[in-house]
Amino acid sequence: MLVTLPVLAATPQQQIQKVLDDQVAAWNRGDIPAFMEGYDKSATFVSTSITEGHDQVLANYVKRYPTREKMGTLKFAGLDVRMLGADYAVVIGRFHLDRTPQAGGESSGIFTLLFHKTSSGWRIILDHTS
Amino acid sequence: MLVTLPVLAATPQQQIQKVLDDQVAAWNRGDIPAFMEGYDKSATFVSTSITEGHDQVLANYVKRYPTREKMGTLKFAGLDVRMLGADYAVVIGRFHLDRTPQAGGESSGIFTLLFHKTSSGWRIILDHTS
Repeated sequence: MLVTLPVLAATPQQQIQKVLDDQVAAWNRGDIPAFMEGYDKSATFVSTSITEGHDQVLANYVKRYPTREKMGTLKFAGLDVRMLGADYAVVIGRFHLDRTPQAGGESSGIFTLLFHKTSSGWRIILDHTS
Repeated sequence: MLVTLPVLAATPQQQIQKVLDDQVAAWNRGDIPAFMEGYDKSATFVSTSITEGHDQVLANYVKRYPTREKMGTLKFAGLDVRMLGADYAVVIGRFHLDRTPQAGGESSGIFTLLFHKTSSGWRIILDHTS
């Protein structure tokens, strides 16, 4: 007898968590373009300045992290996913970049990511990192 | 003949702008509790650390800005209000605090404010400032 297991639909929170897990996995195998797939094409990036658009940030990252060593090992921690209605969510979390002193040393900070449910799935539309 | 002008309902963007205008006016008359009324009671504040709740931040502000001179003159600039459905919105903007060198000097930065339409009007539920 064949037992068919029901396919459990992932909750929005689980789908968002997967986008973040995929980003970390992409970063840690040295694949910046795949990391950037978590962002909407028109995403806004806020830190000490405001940058509009995925392509500009991708170009900045490729320039800033030219080698696997410079990319280090990325970890996200303390992720707090809060739904804002059905199609938006905000995630507060911390990142830690583990790197050798020669590659630039460790780096860490706090981020607020605004997610939107797009036709291609949940994507980050705004990233404020400090 | 009496001409009755129609009351034009403010758009969500105008309502949000008013919350921010009221905050700036409150700050610049030295009224920190009124400034804090723009925030939801359970708002989250992110900068170099994460603080939960309006009351804690109010206490921090009162301690950090004990005098009118230390509060300086606040201005918001470059406000970009983006609706996230009908009940949420995000505002990206810059603040500038004009103060004498004796009072701590000038200060400026970029903020991302997440607004929620509550029963008491639009309120900030998350503030990430860097």
